[in-house]
Amino acid sequence: MQIIGEKINGTRKQVAQAIVERDAHYIQHLARRQAEAGSTWLDVNAGTHPDREPDDLVWLVSTIQAVVDTPLSLDSANPQALAAAIKIVNQTPLINSISGEPQRLNGVLPLVVEYGCPVIALAMGDRGIPESSAARVEVIQRVLEATRAAGIPDERVYVDALAMTLSTNTQSAVIFCDTIREVRAAYPKVHCNAGLSNISYGLPARSYVNRAFLTLALAAGLDCAILDPLDRELRATLLAAELVLGRDSYCLNYVRAYRAGVFTPNP
Amino acid sequence: MQIIGEKINGTRKQVAQAIVERDAHYIQHLARRQAEAGSTWLDVNAGTHPDREPDDLVWLVSTIQAVVDTPLSLDSANPQALAAAIKIVNQTPLINSISGEPQRLNGVLPLVVEYGCPVIALAMGDRGIPESSAARVEVIQRVLEATRAAGIPDERVYVDALAMTLSTNTQSAVIFCDTIREVRAAYPKVHCNAGLSNISYGLPARSYVNRAFLTLALAAGLDCAILDPLDRELRATLLAAELVLGRDSYCLNYVRAYRAGVFTPNP
Repeated sequence: MQIIGEKINGTRKQVAQAIVERDAHYIQHLARRQAEAGSTWLDVNAGTHPDREPDDLVWLVSTIQAVVDTPLSLDSANPQALAAAIKIVNQTPLINSISGEPQRLNGVLPLVVEYGCPVIALAMGDRGIPESSAARVEVIQRVLEATRAAGIPDERVYVDALAMTLSTNTQSAVIFCDTIREVRAAYPKVHCNAGLSNISYGLPARSYVNRAFLTLALAAGLDCAILDPLDRELRATLLAAELVLGRDSYCLNYVRAYRAGVFTPNP
Repeated sequence: MQIIGEKINGTRKQVAQAIVERDAHYIQHLARRQAEAGSTWLDVNAGTHPDREPDDLVWLVSTIQAVVDTPLSLDSANPQALAAAIKIVNQTPLINSISGEPQRLNGVLPLVVEYGCPVIALAMGDRGIPESSAARVEVIQRVLEATRAAGIPDERVYVDALAMTLSTNTQSAVIFCDTIREVRAAYPKVHCNAGLSNISYGLPARSYVNRAFLTLALAAGLDCAILDPLDRELRATLLAAELVLGRDSYCLNYVRAYRAGVFTPNP
Protein backbone atom coordinates (compact mmCIF):
# COMPACT_ATOMS: atom_id res chain seq x y z
CA MET A 1 0.00 0.00 0.00
CA GLN A 2 1.35 3.39 -1.01
CA ILE A 3 0.49 6.41 1.13
CA ILE A 4 0.42 9.94 -0.27
CA GLY A 5 0.68 12.34 2.67
CA GLU A 6 -2.03 14.95 2.20
CA LYS A 7 -1.13 17.68 4.64
CA ILE A 8 0.86 20.13 2.48
CA ASN A 9 -2.15 21.49 0.63
CA GLY A 10 -2.65 25.17 -0.11
CA THR A 11 -6.41 24.86 0.07
CA ARG A 12 -5.96 24.36 3.84
CA LYS A 13 -5.96 27.70 5.66
CA GLN A 14 -2.76 27.27 7.69
CA VAL A 15 -0.80 25.97 4.71
CA ALA A 16 -2.07 28.82 2.53
CA GLN A 17 -0.85 31.30 5.12
CA ALA A 18 2.53 29.56 5.38
CA ILE A 19 2.90 29.79 1.59
CA VAL A 20 2.08 33.50 1.51
CA GLU A 21 4.46 34.20 4.37
CA ARG A 22 7.14 31.83 3.03
CA ASP A 23 7.11 30.10 6.45
CA ALA A 24 9.58 27.32 5.65
CA HIS A 25 9.60 26.10 9.24
CA TYR A 26 5.90 25.19 9.21
CA ILE A 27 6.04 23.44 5.83
CA GLN A 28 9.19 21.53 6.77
CA HIS A 29 7.59 20.42 10.03
CA LEU A 30 4.65 18.94 8.09
CA ALA A 31 7.05 17.32 5.62
CA ARG A 32 9.20 15.73 8.32
CA ARG A 33 6.31 14.38 10.35
CA GLN A 34 4.61 12.84 7.30
CA ALA A 35 7.89 11.32 6.10
CA GLU A 36 8.57 9.83 9.53
CA ALA A 37 5.06 8.35 9.57
CA GLY A 38 5.95 6.29 6.49
CA SER A 39 4.54 8.28 3.55
CA THR A 40 5.49 6.88 0.16
CA TRP A 41 4.91 10.30 -1.43
CA LEU A 42 4.24 13.78 -0.06
CA ASP A 43 1.50 15.65 -1.88
CA VAL A 44 2.42 19.25 -2.69
CA ASN A 45 -0.45 21.56 -3.56
CA ALA A 46 0.20 25.31 -3.79
CA GLY A 47 -3.44 26.35 -3.82
CA THR A 48 -5.61 27.86 -6.47
CA HIS A 49 -4.06 31.21 -7.51
CA PRO A 50 -3.08 30.56 -11.16
CA ASP A 51 -0.70 33.54 -11.39
CA ARG A 52 1.19 32.70 -8.18
CA GLU A 53 0.97 28.90 -8.46
CA PRO A 54 4.23 28.24 -10.39
CA ASP A 55 6.36 30.30 -7.96
CA ASP A 56 4.56 28.92 -4.93
CA LEU A 57 4.92 25.31 -6.06
CA VAL A 58 8.63 25.79 -6.79
CA TRP A 59 9.13 27.33 -3.33
CA LEU A 60 7.25 24.45 -1.67
CA VAL A 61 9.26 21.81 -3.53
CA SER A 62 12.63 23.33 -2.68
CA THR A 63 11.57 23.97 0.92
CA ILE A 64 10.43 20.35 1.41
CA GLN A 65 13.42 18.83 -0.41
CA ALA A 66 15.76 20.66 1.92
CA VAL A 67 14.66 18.42 4.81
CA VAL A 68 13.26 15.10 3.49
CA ASP A 69 14.07 12.57 0.75
CA THR A 70 10.50 11.32 0.28
CA PRO A 71 9.41 11.64 -3.38
CA LEU A 72 6.79 14.29 -4.07
CA SER A 73 3.35 14.20 -5.61
CA LEU A 74 2.97 17.43 -7.58
CA ASP A 75 -0.69 18.31 -7.17
CA SER A 76 -1.85 20.75 -9.81
CA ALA A 77 -3.97 20.94 -12.93
CA ASN A 78 -1.78 23.79 -14.22
CA PRO A 79 0.82 22.69 -16.78
CA GLN A 80 2.91 25.84 -16.16
CA ALA A 81 3.15 25.18 -12.44
CA LEU A 82 3.94 21.50 -13.01
CA ALA A 83 6.60 22.32 -15.63
CA ALA A 84 8.31 24.79 -13.30
CA ALA A 85 8.31 22.39 -10.33
CA ILE A 86 9.28 19.27 -12.27
CA LYS A 87 12.54 20.92 -13.34
CA ILE A 88 13.79 21.24 -9.76
CA VAL A 89 12.66 17.99 -8.12
CA ASN A 90 15.42 15.69 -6.86
CA GLN A 91 13.48 12.50 -7.53
CA THR A 92 10.94 11.56 -10.19
CA PRO A 93 7.63 12.91 -8.86
CA LEU A 94 4.11 11.54 -9.08
CA ILE A 95 1.99 13.90 -11.17
CA ASN A 96 -1.44 14.59 -9.60
CA SER A 97 -3.23 14.57 -12.06
CA ILE A 98 -4.56 14.00 -15.54
CA SER A 99 -8.19 13.18 -16.38
CA GLY A 100 -10.44 12.52 -19.34
CA GLU A 101 -10.85 16.30 -19.83
CA PRO A 102 -9.10 16.98 -23.15
CA GLN A 103 -7.52 20.26 -21.99
CA ARG A 104 -6.04 18.67 -18.88
CA LEU A 105 -4.94 15.54 -20.70
CA ASN A 106 -3.26 17.46 -23.53
CA GLY A 107 -1.70 19.99 -21.18
CA VAL A 108 -0.18 17.58 -18.65
CA LEU A 109 0.49 14.35 -20.57
CA PRO A 110 3.52 15.72 -22.48
CA LEU A 111 5.25 16.47 -19.14
CA VAL A 112 4.49 12.97 -17.88
CA VAL A 113 6.07 11.55 -21.02
CA GLU A 114 9.07 13.88 -21.09
CA TYR A 115 10.04 13.25 -17.46
CA GLY A 116 8.98 9.59 -17.23
CA CYS A 117 6.69 10.25 -14.26
CA PRO A 118 4.01 8.11 -12.71
CA VAL A 119 0.65 9.88 -12.91
CA ILE A 120 -2.75 9.93 -11.22
CA ALA A 121 -5.64 9.61 -13.72
CA LEU A 122 -9.03 10.84 -12.51
CA ALA A 123 -12.26 9.20 -13.70
CA MET A 124 -13.58 12.57 -14.82
CA GLY A 125 -14.50 13.53 -18.37
CA ASP A 126 -15.31 16.79 -20.13
CA ARG A 127 -18.87 16.52 -18.84
CA GLY A 128 -17.82 16.11 -15.22
CA ILE A 129 -17.78 13.04 -13.01
CA PRO A 130 -19.98 10.24 -14.37
CA GLU A 131 -22.63 8.89 -12.01
CA SER A 132 -22.26 5.15 -12.72
CA SER A 133 -19.27 2.89 -12.36
CA ALA A 134 -19.70 1.76 -16.00
CA ALA A 135 -19.37 5.35 -17.22
CA ARG A 136 -16.35 5.96 -14.97
CA VAL A 137 -14.69 2.84 -16.37
CA GLU A 138 -15.31 4.23 -19.88
CA VAL A 139 -13.54 7.47 -19.00
CA ILE A 140 -10.63 5.50 -17.56
CA GLN A 141 -10.48 3.39 -20.73
CA ARG A 142 -10.15 6.55 -22.82
CA VAL A 143 -7.43 7.95 -20.55
CA LEU A 144 -5.54 4.66 -20.67
CA GLU A 145 -5.78 4.64 -24.48
CA ALA A 146 -4.09 8.04 -24.38
CA THR A 147 -1.39 7.02 -21.87
CA ARG A 148 -0.65 3.82 -23.79
CA ALA A 149 -0.52 5.73 -27.07
CA ALA A 150 1.99 8.07 -25.41
CA GLY A 151 4.14 5.08 -24.43
CA ILE A 152 3.39 5.21 -20.69
CA PRO A 153 3.23 1.69 -19.22
CA ASP A 154 0.08 0.89 -17.19
CA GLU A 155 2.12 0.39 -14.01
CA ARG A 156 2.91 4.11 -14.01
CA VAL A 157 -0.80 5.04 -13.99
CA TYR A 158 -2.65 5.52 -10.67
CA VAL A 159 -6.36 5.35 -11.51
CA ASP A 160 -8.47 7.47 -9.15
CA ALA A 161 -12.13 6.43 -9.39
CA LEU A 162 -13.11 9.55 -7.40
CA ALA A 163 -14.53 9.02 -3.95
CA MET A 164 -17.39 11.53 -3.62
CA THR A 165 -19.13 12.30 -0.36
CA LEU A 166 -21.77 9.89 0.89
CA SER A 167 -23.71 12.85 2.25
CA THR A 168 -25.08 13.63 -1.22
CA ASN A 169 -25.10 10.07 -2.65
CA THR A 170 -25.14 7.06 -0.33
CA GLN A 171 -24.11 4.81 -3.25
CA SER A 172 -20.90 6.77 -3.72
CA ALA A 173 -18.54 4.24 -2.08
CA VAL A 174 -20.27 1.33 -3.83
CA ILE A 175 -19.77 3.09 -7.18
CA PHE A 176 -16.11 3.76 -6.31
CA CYS A 177 -15.44 0.14 -5.33
CA ASP A 178 -17.30 -1.28 -8.34
CA THR A 179 -15.24 0.98 -10.60
CA ILE A 180 -11.88 -0.13 -9.25
CA ARG A 181 -12.89 -3.80 -9.28
CA GLU A 182 -13.68 -3.46 -13.00
CA VAL A 183 -10.53 -1.44 -13.70
CA ARG A 184 -8.37 -4.00 -11.84
CA ALA A 185 -9.90 -6.85 -13.84
CA ALA A 186 -9.35 -5.12 -17.19
CA TYR A 187 -5.99 -3.48 -16.42
CA PRO A 188 -4.22 -5.62 -13.80
CA LYS A 189 -1.04 -3.52 -13.83
CA VAL A 190 -2.49 -0.09 -13.00
CA HIS A 191 -2.52 1.21 -9.44
CA CYS A 192 -5.77 2.35 -7.84
CA ASN A 193 -5.75 5.50 -5.72
CA ALA A 194 -8.32 7.33 -3.57
CA GLY A 195 -8.58 10.74 -2.00
CA LEU A 196 -9.83 9.03 1.12
CA SER A 197 -11.44 11.73 3.21
CA ASN A 198 -13.62 13.06 0.39
CA ILE A 199 -15.98 10.15 1.11
CA SER A 200 -17.10 11.69 4.41
CA TYR A 201 -17.25 15.39 3.52
CA GLY A 202 -20.13 17.07 5.37
CA LEU A 203 -20.76 14.11 7.72
CA PRO A 204 -20.17 14.02 11.48
CA ALA A 205 -17.55 11.72 13.05
CA ARG A 206 -15.83 11.49 9.65
CA SER A 207 -12.99 9.31 10.87
CA TYR A 208 -15.22 6.22 11.27
CA VAL A 209 -16.54 6.63 7.74
CA ASN A 210 -13.02 7.07 6.34
CA ARG A 211 -11.85 3.90 8.09
CA ALA A 212 -14.77 1.77 6.86
CA PHE A 213 -14.23 3.10 3.34
CA LEU A 214 -10.48 2.38 3.47
CA THR A 215 -11.19 -1.21 4.57
CA LEU A 216 -13.74 -1.87 1.82
CA ALA A 217 -11.71 -0.12 -0.88
CA LEU A 218 -8.63 -2.20 0.02
CA ALA A 219 -10.75 -5.31 -0.50
CA ALA A 220 -11.81 -3.97 -3.91
CA GLY A 221 -8.22 -3.39 -5.04
CA LEU A 222 -7.08 -0.01 -3.70
CA ASP A 223 -3.28 0.08 -3.39
CA CYS A 224 -2.65 3.80 -2.90
CA ALA A 225 -4.42 6.54 -0.97
CA ILE A 226 -4.08 10.24 -0.29
CA LEU A 227 -4.64 10.49 3.44
CA ASP A 228 -3.37 11.89 6.71
CA PRO A 229 -0.44 9.64 7.62
CA LEU A 230 -0.41 11.14 11.13
CA ASP A 231 -3.85 9.65 11.89
CA ARG A 232 -2.91 6.68 14.07
CA GLU A 233 -6.40 5.18 13.98
CA LEU A 234 -6.27 5.16 10.20
CA ARG A 235 -2.85 3.47 10.18
CA ALA A 236 -4.13 0.85 12.62
CA THR A 237 -7.17 0.33 10.39
CA LEU A 238 -4.93 -0.14 7.36
CA LEU A 239 -2.76 -2.71 9.13
CA ALA A 240 -5.80 -4.56 10.52
CA ALA A 241 -7.56 -4.57 7.14
CA GLU A 242 -4.51 -5.99 5.36
CA LEU A 243 -4.28 -8.68 8.07
CA VAL A 244 -7.97 -9.60 7.76
CA LEU A 245 -7.67 -9.64 3.95
CA GLY A 246 -5.02 -12.35 4.28
CA ARG A 247 -2.19 -10.12 3.07
CA ASP A 248 0.02 -10.14 6.18
CA SER A 249 2.02 -13.39 6.37
CA TYR A 250 2.28 -14.70 9.92
CA CYS A 251 0.61 -11.42 11.10
CA LEU A 252 4.15 -10.00 11.08
CA ASN A 253 3.40 -6.44 9.98
CA TYR A 254 0.53 -6.15 12.44
CA VAL A 255 2.42 -7.49 15.42
CA ARG A 256 5.57 -5.51 14.57
CA ALA A 257 3.58 -2.28 14.29
CA TYR A 258 1.94 -3.03 17.63
CA ARG A 259 5.31 -3.62 19.28
CA ALA A 260 6.66 -0.43 17.72
CA GLY A 261 3.82 1.47 19.39
CA VAL A 262 2.16 2.48 16.11
CA PHE A 263 -1.25 2.02 17.67
CA THR A 264 -2.58 1.70 21.18
CA PRO A 265 -3.70 -1.54 22.81
CA ASN A 266 -7.40 -2.39 22.93
CA PRO A 267 -9.39 0.61 24.11
CA MET B 1 -28.19 -6.24 11.44
CA GLN B 2 -29.01 -8.40 14.44
CA ILE B 3 -26.74 -8.22 17.49
CA ILE B 4 -26.38 -11.11 19.93
CA GLY B 5 -24.97 -9.67 23.17
CA GLU B 6 -22.09 -11.95 24.21
CA LYS B 7 -21.38 -10.96 27.78
CA ILE B 8 -23.41 -13.51 29.79
CA ASN B 9 -21.07 -16.41 29.13
CA GLY B 10 -20.04 -18.90 31.80
CA THR B 11 -16.66 -19.47 30.20
CA ARG B 12 -15.79 -15.93 31.36
CA LYS B 13 -14.36 -15.96 34.86
CA GLN B 14 -16.56 -13.29 36.46
CA VAL B 15 -19.73 -14.76 34.97
CA ALA B 16 -18.74 -18.28 36.10
CA GLN B 17 -18.31 -16.95 39.62
CA ALA B 18 -21.67 -15.14 39.51
CA ILE B 19 -23.34 -18.39 38.42
CA VAL B 20 -21.77 -20.41 41.23
CA GLU B 21 -22.70 -17.74 43.79
CA ARG B 22 -26.15 -17.15 42.26
CA ASP B 23 -25.26 -13.46 42.06
CA ALA B 24 -28.41 -12.25 40.30
CA HIS B 25 -27.39 -8.60 40.61
CA TYR B 26 -24.27 -9.04 38.47
CA ILE B 27 -26.06 -11.05 35.77
CA GLN B 28 -28.99 -8.61 35.67
CA HIS B 29 -26.60 -5.69 35.35
CA LEU B 30 -25.01 -7.31 32.28
CA ALA B 31 -28.46 -8.08 30.87
CA ARG B 32 -29.77 -4.54 31.34
CA ARG B 33 -26.71 -2.85 29.86
CA GLN B 34 -26.68 -5.09 26.79
CA ALA B 35 -30.43 -4.65 26.27
CA GLU B 36 -30.11 -0.85 26.54
CA ALA B 37 -27.28 -0.93 23.99
CA GLY B 38 -29.69 -2.37 21.41
CA SER B 39 -29.04 -6.13 21.48
CA THR B 40 -31.48 -8.13 19.37
CA TRP B 41 -30.75 -11.22 21.47
CA LEU B 42 -28.85 -11.88 24.69
CA ASP B 43 -26.62 -14.94 24.58
CA VAL B 44 -26.92 -17.12 27.68
CA ASN B 45 -24.14 -19.62 28.25
CA ALA B 46 -23.94 -21.44 31.57
CA GLY B 47 -20.42 -22.79 31.12
CA THR B 48 -19.09 -26.26 30.62
CA HIS B 49 -20.10 -28.37 33.64
CA PRO B 50 -22.46 -30.95 32.08
CA ASP B 51 -23.99 -32.00 35.40
CA ARG B 52 -24.73 -28.47 36.58
CA GLU B 53 -25.54 -26.95 33.17
CA PRO B 54 -29.32 -27.54 33.09
CA ASP B 55 -29.87 -25.96 36.53
CA ASP B 56 -27.44 -23.12 35.84
CA LEU B 57 -29.02 -22.29 32.48
CA VAL B 58 -32.52 -22.30 33.99
CA TRP B 59 -31.34 -19.98 36.79
CA LEU B 60 -29.69 -17.64 34.26
CA VAL B 61 -32.80 -17.49 32.06
CA SER B 62 -35.17 -16.72 34.94
CA THR B 63 -32.72 -14.21 36.43
CA ILE B 64 -32.37 -12.34 33.12
CA GLN B 65 -36.07 -12.47 32.25
CA ALA B 66 -36.90 -10.81 35.56
CA VAL B 67 -35.37 -7.55 34.32
CA VAL B 68 -35.34 -7.41 30.48
CA ASP B 69 -37.68 -8.36 27.61
CA THR B 70 -34.92 -8.99 25.05
CA PRO B 71 -35.22 -12.50 23.54
CA LEU B 72 -32.51 -14.94 24.57
CA SER B 73 -30.01 -16.99 22.63
CA LEU B 74 -29.65 -20.30 24.50
CA ASP B 75 -25.99 -21.19 24.04
CA SER B 76 -25.36 -24.86 24.68
CA ALA B 77 -24.56 -28.10 22.87
CA ASN B 78 -26.35 -30.03 25.64
CA PRO B 79 -29.91 -31.10 24.70
CA GLN B 80 -30.84 -31.60 28.39
CA ALA B 81 -29.82 -28.06 29.31
CA LEU B 82 -31.59 -26.61 26.27
CA ALA B 83 -34.76 -28.63 26.96
CA ALA B 84 -34.86 -27.43 30.57
CA ALA B 85 -34.32 -23.77 29.65
CA ILE B 86 -36.63 -23.71 26.64
CA LYS B 87 -39.60 -24.64 28.84
CA ILE B 88 -39.32 -21.48 30.93
CA VAL B 89 -38.43 -18.80 28.36
CA ASN B 90 -40.98 -16.01 27.92
CA GLN B 91 -40.21 -15.50 24.23
CA THR B 92 -39.14 -17.91 21.50
CA PRO B 93 -35.36 -18.17 21.90
CA LEU B 94 -32.60 -18.50 19.35
CA ILE B 95 -30.90 -21.90 19.77
CA ASN B 96 -27.08 -21.67 19.69
CA SER B 97 -26.38 -24.15 18.09
CA ILE B 98 -26.59 -27.14 15.79
CA SER B 99 -23.83 -28.29 13.44
CA GLY B 100 -23.04 -31.02 10.95
CA GLU B 101 -21.97 -33.32 13.82
CA PRO B 102 -24.63 -36.07 13.79
CA GLN B 103 -24.88 -36.27 17.59
CA ARG B 104 -25.42 -32.54 17.97
CA LEU B 105 -27.81 -32.36 15.03
CA ASN B 106 -29.92 -35.28 16.22
CA GLY B 107 -29.89 -34.12 19.83
CA VAL B 108 -30.88 -30.49 19.29
CA LEU B 109 -32.93 -30.43 16.08
CA PRO B 110 -36.06 -32.01 17.64
CA LEU B 111 -36.21 -29.13 20.18
CA VAL B 112 -35.84 -26.57 17.40
CA VAL B 113 -38.76 -28.21 15.58
CA GLU B 114 -40.96 -28.67 18.66
CA TYR B 115 -40.62 -25.07 19.85
CA GLY B 116 -40.44 -23.40 16.43
CA CYS B 117 -37.13 -21.70 17.26
CA PRO B 118 -34.62 -19.98 15.03
CA VAL B 119 -31.27 -21.77 15.21
CA ILE B 120 -27.57 -21.12 14.62
CA ALA B 121 -25.97 -23.75 12.35
CA LEU B 122 -22.18 -24.08 12.60
CA ALA B 123 -20.08 -25.07 9.56
CA MET B 124 -18.54 -27.91 11.52
CA GLY B 125 -18.81 -31.60 10.68
CA ASP B 126 -17.97 -34.84 12.47
CA ARG B 127 -14.36 -34.41 11.42
CA GLY B 128 -14.05 -30.89 12.82
CA ILE B 129 -13.99 -27.54 11.05
CA PRO B 130 -13.15 -27.89 7.35
CA GLU B 131 -10.20 -25.84 6.11
CA SER B 132 -11.63 -24.59 2.81
CA SER B 133 -14.72 -22.52 2.12
CA ALA B 134 -15.92 -25.18 -0.37
CA ALA B 135 -15.84 -27.84 2.34
CA ARG B 136 -17.61 -25.54 4.82
CA VAL B 137 -20.33 -24.87 2.25
CA GLU B 138 -20.74 -28.65 1.87
CA VAL B 139 -21.27 -29.03 5.62
CA ILE B 140 -23.83 -26.21 5.57
CA GLN B 141 -25.61 -27.87 2.63
CA ARG B 142 -25.95 -31.06 4.67
CA VAL B 143 -27.25 -29.18 7.72
CA LEU B 144 -29.75 -27.29 5.56
CA GLU B 145 -30.93 -30.56 4.03
CA ALA B 146 -31.66 -31.70 7.58
CA THR B 147 -33.39 -28.48 8.66
CA ARG B 148 -35.49 -28.41 5.48
CA ALA B 149 -36.39 -32.10 5.92
CA ALA B 150 -37.49 -31.21 9.46
CA GLY B 151 -39.75 -28.47 8.09
CA ILE B 152 -37.68 -25.52 9.34
CA PRO B 153 -37.81 -22.64 6.84
CA ASP B 154 -34.41 -21.25 5.75
CA GLU B 155 -35.17 -17.84 7.28
CA ARG B 156 -35.02 -19.43 10.73
CA VAL B 157 -31.47 -20.70 10.15
CA TYR B 158 -28.46 -18.55 11.12
CA VAL B 159 -25.48 -20.01 9.29
CA ASP B 160 -22.21 -19.51 11.20
CA ALA B 161 -19.24 -20.05 8.88
CA LEU B 162 -16.90 -20.07 11.91
CA ALA B 163 -14.47 -17.22 12.23
CA MET B 164 -11.22 -18.79 13.44
CA THR B 165 -8.27 -16.77 14.68
CA LEU B 166 -5.98 -15.17 12.13
CA SER B 167 -3.05 -15.86 14.44
CA THR B 168 -2.91 -19.50 13.29
CA ASN B 169 -4.24 -19.02 9.73
CA THR B 170 -4.03 -15.63 8.03
CA GLN B 171 -6.56 -16.80 5.39
CA SER B 172 -9.18 -17.39 8.06
CA ALA B 173 -11.27 -14.27 7.41
CA VAL B 174 -11.02 -14.77 3.65
CA ILE B 175 -12.31 -18.34 4.05
CA PHE B 176 -15.13 -17.08 6.29
CA CYS B 177 -16.20 -14.37 3.84
CA ASP B 178 -15.95 -16.68 0.82
CA THR B 179 -18.12 -19.21 2.64
CA ILE B 180 -20.91 -16.76 3.45
CA ARG B 181 -20.83 -15.27 -0.05
CA GLU B 182 -21.44 -18.77 -1.45
CA VAL B 183 -24.08 -19.60 1.16
CA ARG B 184 -25.92 -16.31 0.48
CA ALA B 185 -25.92 -17.00 -3.25
CA ALA B 186 -27.26 -20.55 -2.84
CA TYR B 187 -29.64 -19.90 0.09
CA PRO B 188 -30.75 -16.27 -0.10
CA LYS B 189 -33.14 -16.55 2.85
CA VAL B 190 -30.77 -17.82 5.55
CA HIS B 191 -29.12 -15.43 7.97
CA CYS B 192 -25.34 -15.35 8.35
CA ASN B 193 -23.85 -15.04 11.82
CA ALA B 194 -20.32 -14.67 13.21
CA GLY B 195 -18.72 -15.01 16.63
CA LEU B 196 -16.85 -11.84 15.89
CA SER B 197 -14.00 -11.71 18.38
CA ASN B 198 -12.77 -15.25 17.64
CA ILE B 199 -11.06 -13.79 14.57
CA SER B 200 -8.47 -11.96 16.71
CA TYR B 201 -7.82 -14.52 19.47
CA GLY B 202 -4.16 -14.39 20.52
CA LEU B 203 -3.41 -11.14 18.67
CA PRO B 204 -2.57 -7.77 20.22
CA ALA B 205 -4.86 -4.75 19.82
CA ARG B 206 -7.73 -7.12 18.97
CA SER B 207 -10.33 -4.42 18.64
CA TYR B 208 -8.88 -3.10 15.34
CA VAL B 209 -8.89 -6.60 13.87
CA ASN B 210 -12.48 -7.20 15.01
CA ARG B 211 -13.61 -3.93 13.41
CA ALA B 212 -11.92 -4.63 10.07
CA PHE B 213 -13.41 -8.14 10.07
CA LEU B 214 -16.90 -6.83 10.88
CA THR B 215 -16.68 -4.35 7.99
CA LEU B 216 -15.55 -6.96 5.45
CA ALA B 217 -17.98 -9.63 6.67
CA LEU B 218 -20.89 -7.17 6.38
CA ALA B 219 -19.89 -6.61 2.75
CA ALA B 220 -19.88 -10.39 2.22
CA GLY B 221 -23.40 -10.80 3.62
CA LEU B 222 -23.17 -11.01 7.40
CA ASP B 223 -26.45 -9.91 9.00
CA CYS B 224 -25.99 -11.13 12.59
CA ALA B 225 -23.05 -11.19 14.99
CA ILE B 226 -22.25 -12.30 18.51
CA LEU B 227 -20.32 -9.37 19.91
CA ASP B 228 -19.91 -6.98 22.80
CA PRO B 229 -22.74 -4.45 22.31
CA LEU B 230 -21.13 -2.18 24.92
CA ASP B 231 -18.08 -1.62 22.67
CA ARG B 232 -18.80 1.86 21.32
CA GLU B 233 -16.05 1.70 18.72
CA LEU B 234 -17.57 -1.49 17.32
CA ARG B 235 -21.04 0.08 17.14
CA ALA B 236 -19.60 3.11 15.37
CA THR B 237 -17.80 0.77 12.96
CA LEU B 238 -21.05 -1.07 12.25
CA LEU B 239 -22.94 2.16 11.54
CA ALA B 240 -20.11 3.51 9.37
CA ALA B 241 -19.77 0.24 7.43
CA GLU B 242 -23.50 0.12 6.69
CA LEU B 243 -23.32 3.73 5.50
CA VAL B 244 -20.32 3.07 3.25
CA LEU B 245 -22.00 -0.08 1.89
CA GLY B 246 -24.90 2.09 0.68
CA ARG B 247 -27.40 0.65 3.16
CA ASP B 248 -28.23 3.79 5.14
CA SER B 249 -30.71 5.97 3.20
CA TYR B 250 -29.92 9.67 3.50
CA CYS B 251 -27.26 8.72 6.11
CA LEU B 252 -30.11 8.85 8.64
CA ASN B 253 -29.02 6.05 10.97
CA TYR B 254 -25.47 7.34 11.08
CA VAL B 255 -26.38 10.95 11.75
CA ARG B 256 -29.07 10.01 14.30
CA ALA B 257 -26.64 7.77 16.19
CA TYR B 258 -24.11 10.59 16.20
CA ARG B 259 -26.68 13.05 17.56
CA ALA B 260 -27.74 10.51 20.20
CA GLY B 261 -24.12 10.39 21.38
CA VAL B 262 -23.60 6.75 20.39
CA PHE B 263 -20.07 7.54 19.34
CA THR B 264 -17.65 10.36 19.86
CA PRO B 265 -16.72 13.02 17.31
CA ASN B 266 -13.55 12.67 15.27
CA PRO B 267 -10.61 11.83 17.53
